[in-house]
Amino acid sequence: MRNFIIFIFGLFVSVYPENISAQSAVWTEAAPGVWNIIVGEPDKFDLYKAAEIKPATEALSKMKDSPFPFNEKDIFTEVVKDQTFIRFPLIKDEQIFGFGLNFKTVWSRGKILLLHVDHYGGTDNGRTHAPVPFYVSDRGYGVFINSAKYLRVYAGSAVRKEKQEESAILDRNTDKKWTSAPYSDAVEILVPASGVEIYLFAGPTTLDVVRRFNLYSGGGCLPPRWGLGFTQRVPTLYTSTQVEEEAKSFREHNFPLDFIGLEPGWQSKSYPCTFDWDRTRYPDPASFVKKMKEMGIRLNLWTNPYVSPYSPIYKQILQYTGTHTVWGGVVPDYSIPDARMIFLNQLKSSQVDIGVSGYKLDENDGYDRWLWPDVAKFPSGNSAEQLRQTYGLLLQKMTYEMFHKNNTRTYGLTRASNGGGSSFPYVIYNDYYSHEDFITALINSGFCGVLWTPEVRGSKTSEEWLRRFQTVCFSPMAMINAWSDGTKPWSFPDVENEVREYAFLRMRLIPYLYSEFAKYHFEGTPPFRGMNLEPGFDSKTKMELKN
Amino acid sequence: MRNFIIFIFGLFVSVYPENISAQSAVWTEAAPGVWNIIVGEPDKFDLYKAAEIKPATEALSKMKDSPFPFNEKDIFTEVVKDQTFIRFPLIKDEQIFGFGLNFKTVWSRGKILLLHVDHYGGTDNGRTHAPVPFYVSDRGYGVFINSAKYLRVYAGSAVRKEKQEESAILDRNTDKKWTSAPYSDAVEILVPASGVEIYLFAGPTTLDVVRRFNLYSGGGCLPPRWGLGFTQRVPTLYTSTQVEEEAKSFREHNFPLDFIGLEPGWQSKSYPCTFDWDRTRYPDPASFVKKMKEMGIRLNLWTNPYVSPYSPIYKQILQYTGTHTVWGGVVPDYSIPDARMIFLNQLKSSQVDIGVSGYKLDENDGYDRWLWPDVAKFPSGNSAEQLRQTYGLLLQKMTYEMFHKNNTRTYGLTRASNGGGSSFPYVIYNDYYSHEDFITALINSGFCGVLWTPEVRGSKTSEEWLRRFQTVCFSPMAMINAWSDGTKPWSFPDVENEVREYAFLRMRLIPYLYSEFAKYHFEGTPPFRGMNLEPGFDSKTKMELKN
Repeated sequence: MRNFIIFIFGLFVSVYPENISAQSAVWTEAAPGVWNIIVGEPDKFDLYKAAEIKPATEALSKMKDSPFPFNEKDIFTEVVKDQTFIRFPLIKDEQIFGFGLNFKTVWSRGKILLLHVDHYGGTDNGRTHAPVPFYVSDRGYGVFINSAKYLRVYAGSAVRKEKQEESAILDRNTDKKWTSAPYSDAVEILVPASGVEIYLFAGPTTLDVVRRFNLYSGGGCLPPRWGLGFTQRVPTLYTSTQVEEEAKSFREHNFPLDFIGLEPGWQSKSYPCTFDWDRTRYPDPASFVKKMKEMGIRLNLWTNPYVSPYSPIYKQILQYTGTHTVWGGVVPDYSIPDARMIFLNQLKSSQVDIGVSGYKLDENDGYDRWLWPDVAKFPSGNSAEQLRQTYGLLLQKMTYEMFHKNNTRTYGLTRASNGGGSSFPYVIYNDYYSHEDFITALINSGFCGVLWTPEVRGSKTSEEWLRRFQTVCFSPMAMINAWSDGTKPWSFPDVENEVREYAFLRMRLIPYLYSEFAKYHFEGTPPFRGMNLEPGFDSKTKMELKN
Repeated sequence: MRNFIIFIFGLFVSVYPENISAQSAVWTEAAPGVWNIIVGEPDKFDLYKAAEIKPATEALSKMKDSPFPFNEKDIFTEVVKDQTFIRFPLIKDEQIFGFGLNFKTVWSRGKILLLHVDHYGGTDNGRTHAPVPFYVSDRGYGVFINSAKYLRVYAGSAVRKEKQEESAILDRNTDKKWTSAPYSDAVEILVPASGVEIYLFAGPTTLDVVRRFNLYSGGGCLPPRWGLGFTQRVPTLYTSTQVEEEAKSFREHNFPLDFIGLEPGWQSKSYPCTFDWDRTRYPDPASFVKKMKEMGIRLNLWTNPYVSPYSPIYKQILQYTGTHTVWGGVVPDYSIPDARMIFLNQLKSSQVDIGVSGYKLDENDGYDRWLWPDVAKFPSGNSAEQLRQTYGLLLQKMTYEMFHKNNTRTYGLTRASNGGGSSFPYVIYNDYYSHEDFITALINSGFCGVLWTPEVRGSKTSEEWLRRFQTVCFSPMAMINAWSDGTKPWSFPDVENEVREYAFLRMRLIPYLYSEFAKYHFEGTPPFRGMNLEPGFDSKTKMELKN
């Protein structure tokens, strides 16, 4: 009766042998140890399409063979009208990690999430800068949902009637063992679409799973060596003269400095942006960039993606923008090649051609009121929701390709990313400033193919300053962000020597960091990762599922 | 080109004259001063269907005639695939109220919400106990979206390109007037369905709008007089003897007491529930209830809706339950009449027939991990999301009808409600305990056709205790909830006299409160309401829209 009701409502697709209704609903090996399945009719635009992934098949084929990590019949998928239901089994004591850049907890089992690109708001509820729909199990497999929609995830919290353990039914009146979260034997995911593509990554180890996931996106990024040095972001209204002085003061204080980040004031107008130099603060950008490079210092430029009517590209890009504005700026549909070209032409001719080395891609995540609404429409026909989930990916991809075509490397910052972005040389940052949670995010970044910097801004005490500085020196980007307060590494004189020691330790680590990034690139091994990815840390990291 | 792309994606419906594509997409007068429109193909199950509203047409026809409050062409609706887009205009300085039981702010303009039944989590983000998709404008009209889905609301935050005011485009680098929230001229709503029914309520005053909204749901509820007295909820494991003693102690302390609430311990097992008396604590329920009634004290029984395998109705109701459990309890699909009948038969034969006067309907709102997941499926074919949005409504309706058929009145508590529930004699409560926010909720309850009690539990000081007590005495239900800590009205001896004074003031107010509830019932006027609903408080409460 139940099945009948569902059937008349829409397409019914399942991997249960008795219900196979579509030839496509079978798992296919997409690469060694990587399988995918097409359930129903997926959306045309997804994460891998946005990222235009180029799987590192050669590297993947070098990995040990690993069998399909499940009995197929234990995986359940079903399309009902405009929703796709997915269920993967969990066994007792199995631990899972991932579901993107969470800040509070490493273990993901039990979480209920709405995966939604957003500025992290203090709760691991799925709203974060990189809500990657990927999880990895300590049983040696990983699951990726290739969807650019807001996904509802029940990561081992939902209990089905037929799987209910009778012993879990307790009387709360009198039984102290009563719990609001009884044992659940599955990860369940709801995709708001009439189909979806799912990927499975084999181990055998947990780290192998993550490696395959990263390699399938093209392998991890390989930053330039200067990107692994030290960087300072200067106050927003600094002039070229002040930036030069800043560089000199680093030398005077005997602090290393490899690149400087300019904040919004380099642009003639910002929020929305002109993507053009402010000629009062930067009267001669080409000479300035050249002079800095002669001092051995690269430049990274802040920008957000919204186009001001005062921008030279406004008229040209207008036809490729969405229905709604952000602070008066139009919102380009960067899923359209022509929109990307117009934007990149401006960046290239005005900045990259004179030697600018990278970008900080701001305001592409949230908060909701800092972005376009979900009711916006875009000329590509991709929904506002799909663009929200992929805007960070699109911006990373296009700017990375621009540098790549110029035969130069880049290393920049982004506030949003998603699944498929491992190969883009960008590091995620945010405005949330909990030191403890910044470290948790660093651990979690390793589970989902993104990089994260626990940037240092102000501190209340010199102790805090030193601890934050130590943390950031052991992260993908060693950075002080002084855009607002002008802090310098020596701002706390009583720990200046200790801070300097860590700055130079970072410098001495560059060859090692570079080697680790090479492993990220060629083998998919995340350069920063939690101990749960280390063989031997957890004896359960064996593939024992297929019994 | 844009229109074309949208057109090939799905049904295109709009009230723009040039795009009228369906005969049904016109506004029809549903009752005097009430219009509705069917856009696209709405879901079969909605809020008004769940509540089975019976519009108080006679009362509505007694209200002054009021014209359609818009130029129809200023209202925009469109269906694209499985989403419906709605836009209503806002003019400068217009204020709007509503969107359900919010706790932090009364004014709604500028809010971004995901209307989602849930326990209130400390932020006005749309997740609350009664996320009623209704708002009222101080320009004298109201809008109701009759949908049981999670709606995304941009209540005057989204700015369309063609409506962008050039003066709002400022340079954040140098202009202190820059704002992240520039002027928006519309409320925009996204409905995740391929159609929806929308209602418009006319004024002329803001209060008239709310009155029409309440009358259209059948008019406000009319509680029994005893329901407006004082109520104490006793500790969860109290026995019938202890409850009798509690009643006596109120007399000894010269405190009024009209009904007592029994918490989970009255049931033989709870979380999930048996809906049956615990015979160790309540050996003779019939005599106990009779004895209490002879003392002039009614009884209200706590319950949650999930059925324990140890419940007498478990086997019978099993076929009408969803795929997932809540703490081992099965989740009845109360949108199915047979499921309601089984549940009510148990309540009636075991409790109502021996004189129990009402229920406290707990755990029908959230948190997510205290409820069924959105991946659950139900035998009616209604989605987990639709049942989440209506479960509180369904439980109120069915229990209310049970008492109504018995020709007795009831007055109870619920933790979830929604649009269409005004006529159900239930008061919302929650676990959130901010006194200030409790008062804000009391104000907001008046905008959306629900009742709210700022229940008193513990307090840190006698001052706090007195203030909370004063507040609850000026609310729909004057209640102490001592389920956990056993607090009594006289627990703070230094303010016992003042507390008693307010308890008796409440008693003296009963005739006035009862008259106010009669106005709620017969005229739709909320008995507890903010000053913004009072004529004269805001000179802008005139209908000046249709110019």
